[in-house]
Amino acid sequence: MSKKWVYFFADGKAEGTAQMKELLGGKGANLAEMTNAGVPVPPGFTITTEVCKYYYDNNRTYPQDLAEQVNAAIKELEKVTGKGFGDPIKPLLVSVRSGAAISMPGMMDTILNLGLNDETVKGLVEMTNNERFAYDSYRRFLQMFGDTALGIPHSDFENALSEMKANKGVKLDTDLDAEDLKKLVEIYKEIYKKHGKEFPQDVNKQLWAAIEAVIWSWMSDRAIKYREIHGIKEGQLLGTAVNIVAMVFGNMGDDSGTGVCFTRDPNTGEKVHYGEFLPNAQGEDVVAGIRTPYPLEKMKEMIPHAYDELIEIMDRLEAYFKDMQDIEFTVERGKLYILQTRNAKRTSQAAIRIAVDMVHEGLIDKKTAVLRVQPSDIERVLHPKFDENERKNAKVIAKGLPASPGAATGKIYFDAHKAEKMAEAGEKVLLVRPETSPEDVGGMNAAEGILTARGGMTSHAAVVARGLGKPAVVGAESIYVDEEEGFLKVGDFVVKEGEWLSIDGTTGEVFLGKVTTVKPRGLEGPVAELLSWADEFRKLGVRANADVPRDAKVAREFGAEGIGLCRTEHMFFEKDRIPKVRRMIVARTVEEREAALAELLPLQKEDFKGLFREMKGYPVTIRLIDPPLHEFLPHEEEQMAEVAAQIGISVEELKKVVEQLHELNPMLGHRGVRLVITYPEIAVMQTKAIILAAIELKKEEGIDVVPEIMIPLVGHINELKYIKDVVIKTADELIKQHGVELKYLVGTMIEVPRAAVTADQIAQEADFFSFGTNDLTQMTFGFSRDDVGKFLPEYLAKGILEDDPFKHVDTQGVGQLVKMATEKGKEVKEKLKCGVCGEHGGDPKSIMFFATTKLDYVSASPYRIPVARLAAAQASIKYRS
Amino acid sequence: MSKKWVYFFADGKAEGTAQMKELLGGKGANLAEMTNAGVPVPPGFTITTEVCKYYYDNNRTYPQDLAEQVNAAIKELEKVTGKGFGDPIKPLLVSVRSGAAISMPGMMDTILNLGLNDETVKGLVEMTNNERFAYDSYRRFLQMFGDTALGIPHSDFENALSEMKANKGVKLDTDLDAEDLKKLVEIYKEIYKKHGKEFPQDVNKQLWAAIEAVIWSWMSDRAIKYREIHGIKEGQLLGTAVNIVAMVFGNMGDDSGTGVCFTRDPNTGEKVHYGEFLPNAQGEDVVAGIRTPYPLEKMKEMIPHAYDELIEIMDRLEAYFKDMQDIEFTVERGKLYILQTRNAKRTSQAAIRIAVDMVHEGLIDKKTAVLRVQPSDIERVLHPKFDENERKNAKVIAKGLPASPGAATGKIYFDAHKAEKMAEAGEKVLLVRPETSPEDVGGMNAAEGILTARGGMTSHAAVVARGLGKPAVVGAESIYVDEEEGFLKVGDFVVKEGEWLSIDGTTGEVFLGKVTTVKPRGLEGPVAELLSWADEFRKLGVRANADVPRDAKVAREFGAEGIGLCRTEHMFFEKDRIPKVRRMIVARTVEEREAALAELLPLQKEDFKGLFREMKGYPVTIRLIDPPLHEFLPHEEEQMAEVAAQIGISVEELKKVVEQLHELNPMLGHRGVRLVITYPEIAVMQTKAIILAAIELKKEEGIDVVPEIMIPLVGHINELKYIKDVVIKTADELIKQHGVELKYLVGTMIEVPRAAVTADQIAQEADFFSFGTNDLTQMTFGFSRDDVGKFLPEYLAKGILEDDPFKHVDTQGVGQLVKMATEKGKEVKEKLKCGVCGEHGGDPKSIMFFATTKLDYVSASPYRIPVARLAAAQASIKYRS
Repeated sequence: MSKKWVYFFADGKAEGTAQMKELLGGKGANLAEMTNAGVPVPPGFTITTEVCKYYYDNNRTYPQDLAEQVNAAIKELEKVTGKGFGDPIKPLLVSVRSGAAISMPGMMDTILNLGLNDETVKGLVEMTNNERFAYDSYRRFLQMFGDTALGIPHSDFENALSEMKANKGVKLDTDLDAEDLKKLVEIYKEIYKKHGKEFPQDVNKQLWAAIEAVIWSWMSDRAIKYREIHGIKEGQLLGTAVNIVAMVFGNMGDDSGTGVCFTRDPNTGEKVHYGEFLPNAQGEDVVAGIRTPYPLEKMKEMIPHAYDELIEIMDRLEAYFKDMQDIEFTVERGKLYILQTRNAKRTSQAAIRIAVDMVHEGLIDKKTAVLRVQPSDIERVLHPKFDENERKNAKVIAKGLPASPGAATGKIYFDAHKAEKMAEAGEKVLLVRPETSPEDVGGMNAAEGILTARGGMTSHAAVVARGLGKPAVVGAESIYVDEEEGFLKVGDFVVKEGEWLSIDGTTGEVFLGKVTTVKPRGLEGPVAELLSWADEFRKLGVRANADVPRDAKVAREFGAEGIGLCRTEHMFFEKDRIPKVRRMIVARTVEEREAALAELLPLQKEDFKGLFREMKGYPVTIRLIDPPLHEFLPHEEEQMAEVAAQIGISVEELKKVVEQLHELNPMLGHRGVRLVITYPEIAVMQTKAIILAAIELKKEEGIDVVPEIMIPLVGHINELKYIKDVVIKTADELIKQHGVELKYLVGTMIEVPRAAVTADQIAQEADFFSFGTNDLTQMTFGFSRDDVGKFLPEYLAKGILEDDPFKHVDTQGVGQLVKMATEKGKEVKEKLKCGVCGEHGGDPKSIMFFATTKLDYVSASPYRIPVARLAAAQASIKYRS
Repeated sequence: MSKKWVYFFADGKAEGTAQMKELLGGKGANLAEMTNAGVPVPPGFTITTEVCKYYYDNNRTYPQDLAEQVNAAIKELEKVTGKGFGDPIKPLLVSVRSGAAISMPGMMDTILNLGLNDETVKGLVEMTNNERFAYDSYRRFLQMFGDTALGIPHSDFENALSEMKANKGVKLDTDLDAEDLKKLVEIYKEIYKKHGKEFPQDVNKQLWAAIEAVIWSWMSDRAIKYREIHGIKEGQLLGTAVNIVAMVFGNMGDDSGTGVCFTRDPNTGEKVHYGEFLPNAQGEDVVAGIRTPYPLEKMKEMIPHAYDELIEIMDRLEAYFKDMQDIEFTVERGKLYILQTRNAKRTSQAAIRIAVDMVHEGLIDKKTAVLRVQPSDIERVLHPKFDENERKNAKVIAKGLPASPGAATGKIYFDAHKAEKMAEAGEKVLLVRPETSPEDVGGMNAAEGILTARGGMTSHAAVVARGLGKPAVVGAESIYVDEEEGFLKVGDFVVKEGEWLSIDGTTGEVFLGKVTTVKPRGLEGPVAELLSWADEFRKLGVRANADVPRDAKVAREFGAEGIGLCRTEHMFFEKDRIPKVRRMIVARTVEEREAALAELLPLQKEDFKGLFREMKGYPVTIRLIDPPLHEFLPHEEEQMAEVAAQIGISVEELKKVVEQLHELNPMLGHRGVRLVITYPEIAVMQTKAIILAAIELKKEEGIDVVPEIMIPLVGHINELKYIKDVVIKTADELIKQHGVELKYLVGTMIEVPRAAVTADQIAQEADFFSFGTNDLTQMTFGFSRDDVGKFLPEYLAKGILEDDPFKHVDTQGVGQLVKMATEKGKEVKEKLKCGVCGEHGGDPKSIMFFATTKLDYVSASPYRIPVARLAAAQASIKYRS
């Protein structure tokens, strides 16, 4: 049986095509494609995957006529290169690489410079006029070939190299000269012998050993394992192809050289030809840092025709791949060869600009542009970052969780009030706390950034920081904070109050001293344009978690389509309210409590009016009070007296209330719906404030609002039913009394596992569901988000969890509950609006998962809205189109 | 169309039969049945359910020939009773009752004494020689008839009665004499007029109005609602029947009388005829307490033939219903009538004895006996209770959760150490704490009972008390405990240290002062026999939660078939160990920790040997350390110095460790599998102790054990995998080293919701599942079991939850997770052993649910084993036979 086993390519003509991936492998098909497209890749040929299959099907033998076809291809290669395989004067050297239809780790990678032996190496010296290079190439080939084709341990060669350097008293490979390398070649050959092998001087033997090594590697344990893991069935792929390509040399004189170029500026994204060129050199010289390359323009002076060709090819490759290319090239005696082209790495800023520019250039469509930018790119360009140079030199003293992105630098303060004061006095302040509590919010807002020693990705510090758009590193457990003495200690470093510290909320790093930050540009230019396209594709809505008009304003500017979560209790901490809230808490009778609440009512009403006004036309979901009441009371001895006086009770009484409210596990305690079941009058006040705000806005300013009143922490349908009745009774009375038409919804958070399990029951009483995935994660895993720092780092380090489940939603557990509950809810009530208002709502990876469910929207902190918009668009394109 | 609409019964002959339930309703068919069986029920007749159907099908009219048939039946009734309907001398009075095929609340109940009017009432005076009785009967009839048949508000009559008593200056109805009642009759008639109605003096009009009222009530809102809720479809039942039965009178002279009798002694269960008799009286006289009845034997003297007949009928009824009967009877002029028979209420002791006796008598089979005793009966006879008389007079000052059954009395102490000391000195002690912690276990064990102000059904206090079999009331939130000053306060009551208090752990009541307790008999006699039968039917296994050999011994005596949960950390609190445990915790290096663990190893090994020895042949599941480490350290300033000295570090160091270990929500913190992932050396030590114990027992005593090593708090398969590897490596090495054959299992608790959701994944790595439903409930609801006392009582009071979910498993939420996880697990691994080791494992109601799942066993505290055995047997009979 005669068959074509070998496909040749050279000089703009290839026997293969891009479509022959299955037969030639990905790499082989690509080489053929580029050749056909006129890109001057070095010539070579591909042995088909069918040979690999034949080999294993036929007791590890080759097809009879393979040798003949390979020999013919080598002959052809000699012809087009003008070199001879094994020729001692002008030796043809080749690389040998594997390549299946799917790229697959575990297979043999590359053998370079095959064709070198004791004779041809002299030819290489002649050709390149560089003895050191030739012998370095030879010893490298000996090492690669010995290791890969003959199984001689890599370390044996490395040890010999180290020994030689030690004997010579030098440190770097580059300190070895040609004579050293010649000696090393002899030593390497001895290593072959030690293992009972002989280095083949016959170049054809070299070639066949390399081909066999590639084919063997198809059945290596790692390759088999990889196919198993990725569900690639036996027989689905024929096998691997073998690519044999002529080596080219940039160190053959002044009409030779090597370089790397980009089709655009990878830093700014500007459409310019950009790159570096080193004349009379090989790539290794650049990598080893022996010589410093010139800007690409230098090549124009030195080898103008090759430069012109390169520019033309750059444009062609970019147009062909429709993305910015990173191209390696070599000029051998005036002839340009493209060794590699790939999509170029770029900065976030460049990524966005390039994607937008390419749409304007007609190169890609909007959908492609939207898919091409990473959500993290958006995040990066919207937050401050460190000056790159200063950062390089800065000392990292600790690492915590990257809780809120961006860089911040400031003088550290441990007390939130003091931090606030110093900030008011004009200082740049970094607030450092063991952990934060609602009392610290003022200080957090005044600070440049927040650093805590405890807490996880959804701890108080993290959630509030993201809400404020402040950089934050939390749960940096190695830091010991001594508030009283006013210093922090980490390892041997001690930083005192008032001294400088810097944090990177994007990476979690903590730097000693001051590191200058660079301000971001904001939502304008290409970013804004890209996001407007994202909105065209997005099927998942994006709302904001916003508590006050200021947040709502930011949210709108960033493109939020409503508020998914307004935490009413955050308003309770403001200076004019907290005494009233506390009076409400220490009330001994319903009447006392109602009196205190009556004072809060007009204030909350104004809050809601502000929020509704800012969000006009868009839905606003307001959650009734959620945290346990003790969060509003002081816990430290010193504050007791002050607070007691403020609310007009004795210190003893206050202490007793604090003690009575004390809980062992407050996250699982008397909070959320449980609070308003005990004190329905709080729900009544809040409902009044919401409904009155909507009524007054309608009457006074003609603004129509449909408030969505949300009950937190519901686990049982009866809880929802009980409070829903209270809300509806209160609301309907007010509406009737004011004689207006006003629609409102009453829905529930789904954040308790039981609520997810019984979502079909709960949906009967709910107008909407909003998944509080922070609490849901907390309870589904049984991980306290405030304490998780004690073991989560270890879980991630040991690979027990792949991700922090408070950062990226746990798709297998928590995610399944979200999915199931959404489905159960919508089965009962088709129009049930379902969203996510946990921190996962702003996390791109989580959004990707949410898009696979029946959720209607996600809600994120204002500063994460742009990221969420992009991620939602990408998810919609991938899963819902 | 002529049809039989009316079925007559009298004097041992009835037209109907027991099989005609659909036609005659339940009550009518029963009356027919009893009549046919020769039981002398008063004569009467039943109007069929078809009449009701006809009525509604035919525009609310009756069948043409109904009146004729009813009249004929009345005639017949007059004949057999020798009385006349409307006859002024010997009036026939009847009762009218509804009765469908299914008993149904919402329908009209009863009108008594129908047939009374201004004339016949005088006949009744004559017949009974009791004017007061006759007019009282008349005014009652007026009230019932007016309310039920004519819709006159009940309250109008009640108000008139109250007014009359007020005018006369008396309090009780019985203080009114015949003249008063005559006046009341007139006033009642005025009330009829006020509502535009006239009381019909015509007895036939009375009868037809009552019949119509019954038939109307079939379509009352409440009855319709009831049928809706219970899924009774329209047309499934024909309608209601109407039962018209002659009234009989026990107050017609000395050959008349009334009484109640039991076929056995309802207090002890002894097989004797037991009851009370009141000559020349009606039931109302007994109820009103006007006269004191005699023992039944009195009747033998007074009306011997009726007595003999009654005895004979008692035996017959018991044999017929195959259960102890509670029988109401009346003798009218020497003739015995049975008014009602029903299964008698009885004490727990009696219930058990009767069930067992009846099997021996051949009356019922074992299965019936097992089903007839309530699990709570078993519980009651196995725990101490209060002297009934003292209890009646004792003052209840608070109520908490009934956490561990039984009664206890003692002098109160607030400090566990002091309680222990006083108990050693011979005092009866009741330990009172705000809440308990592991440090209190010694004091709890020494106390008669435990009372806490905080905590739920699975709080530390509750769980430990049940484990120790000590009565406990927990979460009595109205009690304020001042430890420092040494008193408790509840309302106005103050009880000081050393004063007496009593608690009932079965009801949750707290009594002021000393209330004497009575000891139980233990597992012997009828209880033991009944439980041995239960085991014959039981398909669900019953294991014990036992930590030490002493518990295991109790468990075996009570019939446990293995240990489902041994909490290894309970051993850590013993005096000789706690310093070593603490040294292990404060260790700064792995080496220091391993050194401390090495000291614990031989102690733990001996513990396990003791446990294995006690349980020989039965499986023992041992859970690796579960609680967070800070539970083992002191938290109060005073103890710090002592402990620091004990373990040889400075107070500062100790404080720092305590602070570092501090958690905001320890239930969701660094505990369970998370601990041993951080410190695998603890798992290594515990595994060694378990495996070495098994090896040594095998070698030294020839006892074969298959230890089941259980990993707590697993939420992710990788957690289990990680520690399972550590356990297996350690165990296999030891086994190899000792050259023995030893099997062991490695399984996991399912107590984190995520574990239930991903049970199919986790089953791949587990040999068994054990559901920790305490934690599962805690996390599924998001209810901290220690803090739930703050809102759960309100939830129960407001009907938001039907039951405390820590007491009875929540079948809709938590139960569904258990069911689903068991199914998922067994799908992956058919032989996966699945049990419940949470407190629900000892709760009969929960066991009923568990029996509907695929669970293999439940595990309960030793003292609840008997209850669990019975409940499991009942569940198996109901759901798995």
